[in-house]
Amino acid sequence: MRYAVLGTGIVGRTVAARLVSLGHEVVIGTRDPGATSARTEYAEWQQAHPQVALAPFADAARHGEVLVNATGGQVSVAALTEADAEHLDGKVLIDIANPLDFSRGFPPTLDPVDDDSLGELLQRTFPALRVVKTLNTMNCQVMVEPARVPGEHSVFLSGEDADAKKSVRELLYSFGWPEASVLDLGGIESARGTEMLLPIWLRLMGTLGHTDFNFHIQGASAGD
Amino acid sequence: MRYAVLGTGIVGRTVAARLVSLGHEVVIGTRDPGATSARTEYAEWQQAHPQVALAPFADAARHGEVLVNATGGQVSVAALTEADAEHLDGKVLIDIANPLDFSRGFPPTLDPVDDDSLGELLQRTFPALRVVKTLNTMNCQVMVEPARVPGEHSVFLSGEDADAKKSVRELLYSFGWPEASVLDLGGIESARGTEMLLPIWLRLMGTLGHTDFNFHIQGASAGD
Repeated sequence: MRYAVLGTGIVGRTVAARLVSLGHEVVIGTRDPGATSARTEYAEWQQAHPQVALAPFADAARHGEVLVNATGGQVSVAALTEADAEHLDGKVLIDIANPLDFSRGFPPTLDPVDDDSLGELLQRTFPALRVVKTLNTMNCQVMVEPARVPGEHSVFLSGEDADAKKSVRELLYSFGWPEASVLDLGGIESARGTEMLLPIWLRLMGTLGHTDFNFHIQGASAGD
Repeated sequence: MRYAVLGTGIVGRTVAARLVSLGHEVVIGTRDPGATSARTEYAEWQQAHPQVALAPFADAARHGEVLVNATGGQVSVAALTEADAEHLDGKVLIDIANPLDFSRGFPPTLDPVDDDSLGELLQRTFPALRVVKTLNTMNCQVMVEPARVPGEHSVFLSGEDADAKKSVRELLYSFGWPEASVLDLGGIESARGTEMLLPIWLRLMGTLGHTDFNFHIQGASAGD
Protein backbone atom coordinates (compact mmCIF):
# COMPACT_ATOMS: atom_id res chain seq x y z
CA MET A 1 0.00 0.00 0.00
CA ARG A 2 1.13 3.58 -0.61
CA TYR A 3 1.09 5.74 2.53
CA ALA A 4 1.58 9.45 3.05
CA VAL A 5 2.63 10.29 6.59
CA LEU A 6 2.07 13.98 7.26
CA GLY A 7 4.48 15.33 9.87
CA THR A 8 8.21 14.85 10.39
CA GLY A 9 8.34 14.62 14.19
CA ILE A 10 9.08 11.52 16.23
CA VAL A 11 5.50 10.26 15.81
CA GLY A 12 5.52 10.52 12.03
CA ARG A 13 8.98 9.01 11.71
CA THR A 14 8.16 6.10 14.02
CA VAL A 15 5.00 5.23 12.09
CA ALA A 16 6.74 5.71 8.73
CA ALA A 17 9.58 3.36 9.71
CA ARG A 18 7.10 0.72 10.84
CA LEU A 19 5.08 0.99 7.63
CA VAL A 20 8.24 0.56 5.55
CA SER A 21 9.25 -2.47 7.61
CA LEU A 22 5.89 -4.00 6.68
CA GLY A 23 6.60 -3.51 2.98
CA HIS A 24 4.56 -0.36 2.34
CA GLU A 25 5.72 2.55 0.18
CA VAL A 26 5.93 5.65 2.34
CA VAL A 27 6.34 9.32 1.57
CA ILE A 28 6.60 11.73 4.48
CA GLY A 29 4.94 15.07 3.88
CA THR A 30 6.27 18.35 5.21
CA ARG A 31 5.82 22.04 4.45
CA ASP A 32 9.40 22.64 3.32
CA PRO A 33 11.47 19.53 2.54
CA GLY A 34 14.65 21.59 2.35
CA ALA A 35 14.19 22.95 5.86
CA THR A 36 13.27 19.50 7.22
CA SER A 37 16.34 17.87 5.62
CA ALA A 38 18.54 20.57 7.14
CA ARG A 39 17.54 19.49 10.66
CA THR A 40 20.26 17.19 12.03
CA GLU A 41 17.73 14.96 13.78
CA TYR A 42 15.76 14.40 10.60
CA ALA A 43 18.86 14.02 8.40
CA GLU A 44 20.24 11.29 10.66
CA TRP A 45 16.93 9.48 10.64
CA GLN A 46 16.66 9.83 6.86
CA GLN A 47 20.08 8.25 6.45
CA ALA A 48 18.93 5.24 8.48
CA HIS A 49 15.68 5.03 6.48
CA PRO A 50 16.62 5.63 2.84
CA GLN A 51 13.41 4.00 1.56
CA VAL A 52 11.28 6.83 2.94
CA ALA A 53 10.92 9.79 0.60
CA LEU A 54 10.37 13.34 1.85
CA ALA A 55 8.09 15.65 -0.14
CA PRO A 56 5.87 18.69 0.18
CA PHE A 57 2.45 17.93 1.69
CA ALA A 58 0.72 18.01 -1.71
CA ASP A 59 3.15 15.56 -3.34
CA ALA A 60 2.97 13.22 -0.36
CA ALA A 61 -0.82 13.33 -0.38
CA ARG A 62 -0.89 12.62 -4.13
CA HIS A 63 1.31 9.55 -3.55
CA GLY A 64 -0.66 8.17 -0.62
CA GLU A 65 -3.64 5.87 -0.99
CA VAL A 66 -3.95 6.27 2.78
CA LEU A 67 -2.90 9.38 4.73
CA VAL A 68 -1.66 9.46 8.31
CA ASN A 69 -1.99 12.72 10.23
CA ALA A 70 1.03 12.93 12.50
CA THR A 71 1.31 16.71 12.46
CA GLY A 72 0.90 18.79 15.60
CA GLY A 73 -2.80 19.17 16.28
CA GLN A 74 -2.63 22.97 16.11
CA VAL A 75 -1.30 22.87 12.52
CA SER A 76 -3.18 19.85 11.15
CA VAL A 77 -5.79 21.88 9.26
CA ALA A 78 -3.04 23.99 7.66
CA ALA A 79 -1.09 20.89 6.63
CA LEU A 80 -4.12 19.24 5.05
CA THR A 81 -5.04 22.48 3.32
CA GLU A 82 -1.59 22.50 1.73
CA ALA A 83 -2.10 18.84 0.80
CA ASP A 84 -4.74 20.04 -1.66
CA ALA A 85 -8.34 18.93 -1.86
CA GLU A 86 -7.84 17.02 -5.12
CA HIS A 87 -5.41 14.67 -3.38
CA LEU A 88 -7.75 13.90 -0.51
CA ASP A 89 -10.88 12.77 -2.33
CA GLY A 90 -12.28 9.60 -0.77
CA LYS A 91 -9.02 8.72 0.95
CA VAL A 92 -8.74 7.40 4.48
CA LEU A 93 -7.06 9.78 6.91
CA ILE A 94 -5.75 8.00 9.99
CA ASP A 95 -5.69 10.77 12.55
CA ILE A 96 -3.20 9.91 15.30
CA ALA A 97 -2.64 13.53 16.40
CA ASN A 98 -3.89 15.39 19.45
CA PRO A 99 -4.88 19.06 19.66
CA LEU A 100 -2.27 19.88 22.29
CA ASP A 101 -1.88 23.59 22.91
CA PHE A 102 1.49 24.49 24.43
CA SER A 103 0.94 28.24 24.19
CA ARG A 104 0.54 28.45 27.97
CA GLY A 105 3.43 26.09 28.71
CA PHE A 106 3.50 22.59 30.12
CA PRO A 107 1.29 20.71 30.70
CA PRO A 108 -0.52 21.67 27.51
CA THR A 109 -4.25 22.22 27.32
CA LEU A 110 -6.42 20.92 24.48
CA ASP A 111 -7.95 23.03 21.73
CA PRO A 112 -10.56 22.04 20.70
CA VAL A 113 -11.81 20.18 23.77
CA ASP A 114 -14.96 18.69 25.30
CA ASP A 115 -17.65 19.85 22.85
CA ASP A 116 -15.46 19.32 19.77
CA SER A 117 -12.30 17.42 18.84
CA LEU A 118 -9.50 17.51 16.32
CA GLY A 119 -10.93 14.39 14.68
CA GLU A 120 -14.28 16.08 14.14
CA LEU A 121 -12.64 19.32 13.04
CA LEU A 122 -10.70 17.47 10.32
CA GLN A 123 -13.75 15.49 9.19
CA ARG A 124 -15.81 18.69 9.05
CA THR A 125 -13.14 20.75 7.27
CA PHE A 126 -12.24 18.04 4.76
CA PRO A 127 -15.50 16.16 4.11
CA ALA A 128 -13.93 14.29 1.18
CA LEU A 129 -11.66 12.45 3.62
CA ARG A 130 -12.77 9.43 5.60
CA VAL A 131 -11.26 10.26 8.99
CA VAL A 132 -10.50 7.47 11.44
CA LYS A 133 -9.18 8.57 14.81
CA THR A 134 -6.96 5.98 16.45
CA LEU A 135 -3.64 5.39 18.23
CA ASN A 136 -3.64 8.91 19.71
CA THR A 137 -3.83 7.64 23.29
CA MET A 138 -0.31 6.23 23.66
CA ASN A 139 3.36 6.81 22.96
CA CYS A 140 4.33 6.38 19.31
CA GLN A 141 6.54 3.37 19.97
CA VAL A 142 3.63 1.59 21.62
CA MET A 143 1.45 2.47 18.62
CA VAL A 144 3.55 0.38 16.28
CA GLU A 145 4.83 -2.23 18.73
CA PRO A 146 2.09 -2.85 21.31
CA ALA A 147 4.02 -5.72 22.92
CA ARG A 148 6.29 -3.09 24.52
CA VAL A 149 3.54 -2.84 27.14
CA PRO A 150 3.04 -6.19 28.86
CA GLY A 151 -0.44 -7.63 29.12
CA GLU A 152 -3.63 -6.66 27.33
CA HIS A 153 -4.28 -3.01 26.54
CA SER A 154 -6.62 -1.05 24.34
CA VAL A 155 -6.60 0.94 21.13
CA PHE A 156 -9.69 2.93 20.17
CA LEU A 157 -11.33 3.60 16.81
CA SER A 158 -13.62 6.55 16.01
CA GLY A 159 -15.00 7.35 12.59
CA GLU A 160 -18.05 7.60 10.37
CA ASP A 161 -17.03 5.18 7.61
CA ALA A 162 -17.26 1.44 8.33
CA ASP A 163 -14.99 0.43 5.43
CA ALA A 164 -12.36 2.95 6.48
CA LYS A 165 -12.45 1.62 10.05
CA LYS A 166 -12.16 -1.93 8.74
CA SER A 167 -9.03 -1.08 6.76
CA VAL A 168 -7.50 0.71 9.76
CA ARG A 169 -8.26 -2.35 11.89
CA GLU A 170 -6.26 -4.48 9.45
CA LEU A 171 -3.35 -2.07 9.72
CA LEU A 172 -3.53 -2.25 13.54
CA TYR A 173 -3.45 -6.06 13.38
CA SER A 174 -0.36 -5.84 11.17
CA PHE A 175 1.28 -3.61 13.82
CA GLY A 176 0.71 -6.43 16.33
CA TRP A 177 -2.56 -5.37 17.96
CA PRO A 178 -4.70 -8.36 18.96
CA GLU A 179 -8.26 -8.23 17.68
CA ALA A 180 -9.70 -8.08 21.20
CA SER A 181 -7.67 -4.94 21.96
CA VAL A 182 -9.37 -2.84 19.29
CA LEU A 183 -12.40 -1.01 20.69
CA ASP A 184 -14.67 0.69 18.17
CA LEU A 185 -16.25 3.65 19.98
CA GLY A 186 -18.52 4.63 17.08
CA GLY A 187 -18.66 7.89 15.16
CA ILE A 188 -15.95 10.53 14.91
CA GLU A 189 -17.59 12.47 17.76
CA SER A 190 -16.18 9.85 20.11
CA ALA A 191 -12.71 11.26 19.34
CA ARG A 192 -13.57 13.81 22.05
CA GLY A 193 -13.22 11.08 24.63
CA THR A 194 -9.94 9.68 23.36
CA GLU A 195 -8.32 13.10 22.93
CA MET A 196 -9.34 13.93 26.50
CA LEU A 197 -7.21 11.03 27.72
CA LEU A 198 -4.11 13.10 27.00
CA PRO A 199 -3.99 15.07 30.27
CA ILE A 200 -3.95 11.94 32.43
CA TRP A 201 -1.56 10.27 29.99
CA LEU A 202 0.89 13.17 30.39
CA ARG A 203 0.49 13.07 34.16
CA LEU A 204 1.11 9.31 34.23
CA MET A 205 4.23 9.75 32.11
CA GLY A 206 5.55 12.08 34.81
CA THR A 207 4.50 9.82 37.67
CA LEU A 208 5.76 6.57 36.16
CA GLY A 209 8.87 8.06 34.57
CA HIS A 210 8.46 6.15 31.31
CA THR A 211 6.13 5.91 28.31
CA ASP A 212 5.68 2.15 27.98
CA PHE A 213 2.21 2.13 29.48
CA ASN A 214 -1.27 2.22 28.03
CA PHE A 215 -4.93 2.31 28.94
CA HIS A 216 -6.71 -1.00 29.14
CA ILE A 217 -10.47 -1.12 29.46
CA GLN A 218 -10.91 -3.91 31.94
CA GLY A 219 -14.30 -5.59 31.69
CA ALA A 220 -14.77 -4.66 28.03
CA SER A 221 -14.47 -8.13 26.55
CA ALA A 222 -16.14 -11.41 27.35
CA GLY A 223 -12.72 -12.88 28.06
CA ASP A 224 -11.96 -10.48 30.92
CA MET B 1 -15.13 6.49 61.82
CA ARG B 2 -17.88 9.07 61.39
CA TYR B 3 -18.64 9.89 57.77
CA ALA B 4 -20.80 12.55 56.17
CA VAL B 5 -21.86 11.64 52.65
CA LEU B 6 -23.09 14.74 50.83
CA GLY B 7 -25.63 13.88 48.15
CA THR B 8 -28.60 11.54 48.10
CA GLY B 9 -28.31 10.12 44.59
CA ILE B 10 -27.31 6.60 43.66
CA VAL B 11 -23.61 7.39 44.14
CA GLY B 12 -24.04 8.77 47.65
CA ARG B 13 -26.38 5.96 48.70
CA THR B 14 -24.08 3.25 47.34
CA VAL B 15 -21.06 4.65 49.18
CA ALA B 16 -23.07 5.25 52.37
CA ALA B 17 -24.33 1.65 52.38
CA ARG B 18 -20.82 0.32 51.92
CA LEU B 19 -19.44 2.51 54.72
CA VAL B 20 -22.17 1.28 57.07
CA SER B 21 -21.42 -2.33 56.14
CA LEU B 22 -17.83 -1.69 57.22
CA GLY B 23 -18.98 -0.48 60.62
CA HIS B 24 -18.78 3.28 60.10
CA GLU B 25 -21.35 5.79 61.35
CA VAL B 26 -22.85 7.56 58.37
CA VAL B 27 -25.03 10.61 58.01
CA ILE B 28 -26.18 11.58 54.53
CA GLY B 29 -26.38 15.31 53.93
CA THR B 30 -29.00 16.95 51.78
CA ARG B 31 -30.44 20.43 51.31
CA ASP B 32 -33.94 19.58 52.51
CA PRO B 33 -34.33 16.26 54.36
CA GLY B 34 -38.12 16.49 54.18
CA ALA B 35 -38.07 16.74 50.40
CA THR B 36 -35.53 13.93 50.09
CA SER B 37 -37.54 11.62 52.34
CA ALA B 38 -40.63 12.29 50.27
CA ARG B 39 -38.96 10.80 47.19
CA THR B 40 -40.12 7.19 46.82
CA GLU B 41 -36.70 6.03 45.64
CA TYR B 42 -34.97 7.49 48.66
CA ALA B 43 -37.67 6.37 51.11
CA GLU B 44 -37.37 2.77 49.94
CA TRP B 45 -33.61 2.86 50.24
CA GLN B 46 -33.86 4.45 53.70
CA GLN B 47 -36.13 1.64 54.84
CA ALA B 48 -33.50 -0.90 53.76
CA HIS B 49 -30.71 1.09 55.45
CA PRO B 50 -32.12 2.27 58.77
CA GLN B 51 -28.65 2.86 60.24
CA VAL B 52 -28.04 5.78 57.90
CA ALA B 53 -29.33 9.12 59.17
CA LEU B 54 -30.45 11.90 56.85
CA ALA B 55 -29.73 15.50 57.84
CA PRO B 56 -29.22 18.98 56.40
CA PHE B 57 -25.75 19.51 54.92
CA ALA B 58 -24.55 21.46 57.97
CA ASP B 59 -25.61 18.79 60.48
CA ALA B 60 -24.11 16.02 58.36
CA ALA B 61 -20.84 17.94 58.04
CA ARG B 62 -20.74 18.55 61.80
CA HIS B 63 -21.15 14.79 62.36
CA GLY B 64 -18.52 13.69 59.86
CA GLU B 65 -14.85 13.35 60.67
CA VAL B 66 -14.47 12.67 56.96
CA LEU B 67 -16.72 14.11 54.23
CA VAL B 68 -17.57 12.48 50.92
CA ASN B 69 -18.69 14.73 48.07
CA ALA B 70 -21.26 12.75 46.10
CA THR B 71 -23.31 15.73 44.99
CA GLY B 72 -23.69 16.68 41.35
CA GLY B 73 -20.59 18.56 40.29
CA GLN B 74 -22.57 21.64 39.29
CA VAL B 75 -23.97 22.05 42.83
CA SER B 76 -20.99 20.89 44.91
CA VAL B 77 -19.84 24.39 45.86
CA ALA B 78 -23.37 25.30 46.95
CA ALA B 79 -23.67 22.13 49.04
CA LEU B 80 -20.37 22.71 50.80
CA THR B 81 -21.25 26.35 51.36
CA GLU B 82 -24.39 25.19 53.16
CA ALA B 83 -22.27 22.72 55.11
CA ASP B 84 -20.74 25.73 56.86
CA ALA B 85 -17.06 26.60 57.09
CA GLU B 86 -16.85 25.80 60.81
CA HIS B 87 -17.72 22.16 60.08
CA LEU B 88 -15.06 21.78 57.41
CA ASP B 89 -11.93 22.91 59.23
CA GLY B 90 -9.07 20.50 58.60
CA LYS B 91 -11.36 17.67 57.52
CA VAL B 92 -10.69 15.36 54.61
CA LEU B 93 -13.12 15.76 51.71
CA ILE B 94 -13.16 12.72 49.44
CA ASP B 95 -14.35 14.19 46.15
CA ILE B 96 -15.88 11.45 44.03
CA ALA B 97 -18.01 13.80 41.92
CA ASN B 98 -17.57 15.00 38.34
CA PRO B 99 -18.45 18.41 36.93
CA LEU B 100 -20.91 17.03 34.41
CA ASP B 101 -22.98 19.71 32.71
CA PHE B 102 -26.22 18.36 31.26
CA SER B 103 -27.57 21.78 30.29
CA ARG B 104 -27.01 20.98 26.61
CA GLY B 105 -28.36 17.43 26.87
CA PHE B 106 -26.61 14.07 26.62
CA PRO B 107 -23.75 13.41 26.47
CA PRO B 108 -22.88 16.05 29.06
CA THR B 109 -19.90 18.35 28.75
CA LEU B 110 -17.61 19.19 31.67
CA ASP B 111 -17.50 22.52 33.51
CA PRO B 112 -14.82 23.28 34.57
CA VAL B 113 -12.60 21.39 32.14
CA ASP B 114 -9.02 21.20 30.88
CA ASP B 115 -7.42 24.19 32.63
CA ASP B 116 -9.31 23.66 35.90
CA SER B 117 -11.24 20.88 37.61
CA LEU B 118 -13.94 20.38 40.20
CA GLY B 119 -11.31 19.01 42.59
CA GLU B 120 -9.24 22.19 42.30
CA LEU B 121 -12.32 24.39 42.50
CA LEU B 122 -13.35 22.78 45.80
CA GLN B 123 -9.83 22.96 47.25
CA ARG B 124 -9.56 26.62 46.22
CA THR B 125 -13.01 27.59 47.47
CA PHE B 126 -12.70 25.71 50.77
CA PRO B 127 -9.01 25.92 51.69
CA ALA B 128 -9.72 24.55 55.18
CA LEU B 129 -10.64 21.19 53.62
CA ARG B 130 -8.06 18.63 52.58
CA VAL B 131 -9.50 17.53 49.24
CA VAL B 132 -8.64 14.12 47.84
CA LYS B 133 -10.05 13.35 44.42
CA THR B 134 -10.61 9.66 43.84
CA LEU B 135 -13.09 7.03 42.60
CA ASN B 136 -14.66 9.47 40.11
CA THR B 137 -13.59 7.41 37.10
CA MET B 138 -15.96 4.46 37.47
CA ASN B 139 -19.50 3.38 38.25
CA CYS B 140 -20.44 3.68 41.93
CA GLN B 141 -20.88 -0.04 42.40
CA VAL B 142 -17.35 -0.63 41.15
CA MET B 143 -16.11 2.06 43.55
CA VAL B 144 -17.13 0.06 46.59
CA GLU B 145 -16.80 -3.46 45.16
CA PRO B 146 -13.90 -3.45 42.70
CA ALA B 147 -14.08 -7.21 42.20
CA ARG B 148 -17.20 -6.64 40.06
CA VAL B 149 -14.70 -5.93 37.28
CA PRO B 150 -12.52 -8.97 36.64
CA GLY B 151 -8.76 -8.56 36.56
CA GLU B 152 -6.59 -5.69 37.69
CA HIS B 153 -7.83 -2.14 37.26
CA SER B 154 -6.90 1.27 38.56
CA VAL B 155 -8.14 3.90 40.98
CA PHE B 156 -6.47 7.31 41.03
CA LEU B 157 -5.62 9.68 43.87
CA SER B 158 -5.10 13.44 43.53
CA GLY B 159 -4.56 15.84 46.41
CA GLU B 160 -2.19 18.18 48.20
CA ASP B 161 -2.14 16.55 51.64
CA ALA B 162 -0.10 13.37 52.08
CA ASP B 163 -1.83 12.34 55.33
CA ALA B 164 -5.23 12.82 53.78
CA LYS B 165 -4.25 10.69 50.81
CA LYS B 166 -2.90 8.02 53.15
CA SER B 167 -6.21 7.84 55.04
CA VAL B 168 -8.15 7.65 51.77
CA ARG B 169 -5.85 4.86 50.62
CA GLU B 170 -6.77 2.90 53.76
CA LEU B 171 -10.45 3.39 53.00
CA LEU B 172 -9.91 2.15 49.43
CA TYR B 173 -8.16 -0.96 50.74
CA SER B 174 -11.14 -1.59 53.02
CA PHE B 175 -13.43 -1.35 49.96
CA GLY B 176 -11.39 -4.18 48.41
CA TRP B 177 -8.90 -2.25 46.27
CA PRO B 178 -5.52 -4.00 46.07
CA GLU B 179 -2.58 -1.78 46.95
CA ALA B 180 -1.11 -2.05 43.44
CA SER B 181 -4.32 -0.68 41.93
CA VAL B 182 -4.06 2.68 43.67
CA LEU B 183 -2.17 5.21 41.53
CA ASP B 184 -1.22 8.48 43.21
CA LEU B 185 -1.10 11.10 40.46
CA GLY B 186 0.19 13.88 42.70
CA GLY B 187 -1.40 17.23 43.50
CA ILE B 188 -5.05 18.17 43.15
CA GLU B 189 -4.32 19.68 39.73
CA SER B 190 -4.12 16.13 38.44
CA ALA B 191 -7.88 15.86 39.00
CA ARG B 192 -8.15 17.53 35.58
CA GLY B 193 -6.94 14.33 34.02
CA THR B 194 -9.25 11.99 35.90
CA GLU B 195 -12.33 14.16 35.39
CA MET B 196 -11.55 14.24 31.67
CA LEU B 197 -11.91 10.45 31.58
CA LEU B 198 -15.68 10.88 31.88
CA PRO B 199 -16.47 11.45 28.18
CA ILE B 200 -14.82 8.19 27.09
CA TRP B 201 -16.30 6.43 30.12
CA LEU B 202 -19.80 7.50 29.05
CA ARG B 203 -19.09 6.44 25.47
CA LEU B 204 -17.82 3.05 26.62
CA MET B 205 -20.94 2.57 28.74
CA GLY B 206 -22.98 3.02 25.56
CA THR B 207 -20.75 0.78 23.46
CA LEU B 208 -20.43 -2.03 26.01
CA GLY B 209 -23.98 -1.82 27.31
CA HIS B 210 -22.97 -2.18 30.95
CA THR B 211 -21.06 -0.34 33.68
CA ASP B 212 -18.89 -3.10 35.12
CA PHE B 213 -15.73 -1.91 33.41
CA ASN B 214 -12.85 0.26 34.48
CA PHE B 215 -9.62 1.82 33.31
CA HIS B 216 -6.46 -0.12 33.97
CA ILE B 217 -3.09 1.48 33.41
CA GLN B 218 -1.17 -1.37 31.88
CA GLY B 219 2.58 -1.06 32.37
CA ALA B 220 2.26 1.06 35.52
CA SER B 221 3.52 -1.47 38.03
CA ALA B 222 6.61 -3.62 38.15
CA GLY B 223 4.38 -6.68 38.19
CA ASP B 224 2.82 -5.95 34.80
